[in-house]
Amino acid sequence: MPQPPFSSSPKIDVLISEVGPRDGLQSIATTMPTMNKMRWLDALAAAGLREIEVASFVPAKLMPQMADAAEVTKHACTLPGVTVMALVPNLRGANAALQAGAQKLTLPVSASTAHSLANVRRTREQMIDDVRSISQLRQDIAPSARIEAGISTAFGCTLQGVVNEDDVIRTAVLCANAGADEVGLSDTVGYANPAQVRRLFRRLRMELGPRAGAAHMHNTRGLGLANCLAAYEEGVTTFDSSQGGLGGCPFAPGASGNVVTEDLVFMFEAMGVSTGIDIALLREARAALQAGLPGEPLYGMVHEAGLPKGFIQSMDFLSKEA
Amino acid sequence: MPQPPFSSSPKIDVLISEVGPRDGLQSIATTMPTMNKMRWLDALAAAGLREIEVASFVPAKLMPQMADAAEVTKHACTLPGVTVMALVPNLRGANAALQAGAQKLTLPVSASTAHSLANVRRTREQMIDDVRSISQLRQDIAPSARIEAGISTAFGCTLQGVVNEDDVIRTAVLCANAGADEVGLSDTVGYANPAQVRRLFRRLRMELGPRAGAAHMHNTRGLGLANCLAAYEEGVTTFDSSQGGLGGCPFAPGASGNVVTEDLVFMFEAMGVSTGIDIALLREARAALQAGLPGEPLYGMVHEAGLPKGFIQSMDFLSKEA
Repeated sequence: MPQPPFSSSPKIDVLISEVGPRDGLQSIATTMPTMNKMRWLDALAAAGLREIEVASFVPAKLMPQMADAAEVTKHACTLPGVTVMALVPNLRGANAALQAGAQKLTLPVSASTAHSLANVRRTREQMIDDVRSISQLRQDIAPSARIEAGISTAFGCTLQGVVNEDDVIRTAVLCANAGADEVGLSDTVGYANPAQVRRLFRRLRMELGPRAGAAHMHNTRGLGLANCLAAYEEGVTTFDSSQGGLGGCPFAPGASGNVVTEDLVFMFEAMGVSTGIDIALLREARAALQAGLPGEPLYGMVHEAGLPKGFIQSMDFLSKEA
Repeated sequence: MPQPPFSSSPKIDVLISEVGPRDGLQSIATTMPTMNKMRWLDALAAAGLREIEVASFVPAKLMPQMADAAEVTKHACTLPGVTVMALVPNLRGANAALQAGAQKLTLPVSASTAHSLANVRRTREQMIDDVRSISQLRQDIAPSARIEAGISTAFGCTLQGVVNEDDVIRTAVLCANAGADEVGLSDTVGYANPAQVRRLFRRLRMELGPRAGAAHMHNTRGLGLANCLAAYEEGVTTFDSSQGGLGGCPFAPGASGNVVTEDLVFMFEAMGVSTGIDIALLREARAALQAGLPGEPLYGMVHEAGLPKGFIQSMDFLSKEA
């Protein structure tokens, strides 16, 4: 009798989607050597990460850090139990990502027109057209691949300030109608607060049901984990974060941009919410990251402070080993 | 017709209890000059803080930073609209604090015997006896003063690890029975998680009703604001924090021990939960703090990143001025 894929994986309550290899590495000037990227991905997979955004399929001229996107994606596809995700800014990128074997594409669609023009030089409407053409491409060449739209600046924008909540939800619905399998909300600039997170994800789930996607929160103003908690309590089960807080435009010394994977995993595991991630092995993945970027500052409160005395991870496969 | 005290103050939803002048200043080696302490307190009051823990009444030999506790307390009592709070470790300290005019006393009672012996060289039972004798003293010499017991290590202890939740609640109830007007829970070492915070404050409120007191959370593992959010959602309305994250045993560079007042106020105000605190004036208070402790590292993500573009504080008195 055929087994469903990854049937041996223990059940998890939330999916932590590691974005460091894409969002993190594209944010810093240094380019991590391909071999180190692969070792880091191996270590992340070994720690139990089940979804990793491994690369961005953009022109190497614009982003030399991602010149090896296809090679890295192909390697990631050899890792058992990992959904290999790639960011694609347009149809050309989507084609390259699917050719390389990416199992899930994520396309950023900004709720703020000002941000959309500044970020990708295209209007929101043009980006939604891209979702449609990418969905068509997927039908044609890789029907099992999934497509996510991430609504950026969903909680505010450094250019236009407040972003109308109706606009955010309308954009999300248009993306779903254009063929996105799931639509997440991104706090691109760290403006979100827990009340707003609850409101928007509640509306998103009302509109899209199971196609309501991930919470991508930033920790720019210290509210990253509080916002993830609020999203979790509204039923969100997928959370983006990056190891060591790499990327996501940190403003301040000691301040991370992206929510730190280690801290997020600790929060959920301490609450008894299973992530499937082994915190001790996650620490080893951090060493692999640091080996590929010597001297690059990494963040994380749990990494610095250590685990509480007597802390026991409530993981099925850990207890099986014990 | 007589007016209730501070009737001109706008209504607030949560009370931020600033502990920096006590918890912060006693944690660092440098002693802030008395004049600077007074200026900082003035600035905190001007920013809208309504409860400030201004000093610890301990022997100056043990804690020279607090040698001017009586003088500082007397000055704080001249500030309109501020409840002047003092930490007292025993009956002798309580007497001195009440003589100086303190309007509220806080007594730490550890849920962990190991911590209690290490911290104050007394058992939990002896500390509860102190609550009783201090309550009696209050009846005799300052009947309008209030007494708070703060249950330290309520969420875990670096010495004994896990602290039994029944023990925490039992200790809180014993403190209330011994005469404490309110009993708060303190995450002394930064072990708390939001699920635990919800459980314990829910039980505390079930047992003590309106005598359930403040949440004193630390940010050692990055969960400070998430834990405050969880407590708020369980009905807690008083939150301890310290300006610039001063004190509370920070472990790491860039890591605060105590929850940072600026970040906490920002979270609540962004959610539309009124604190009565003017964030711009709070920034000026930070300058007064820094002036009294040149070179001392201060923390705070909102201070570094700034307020979101278009951010408007939902404060009664601000809108009146507009």
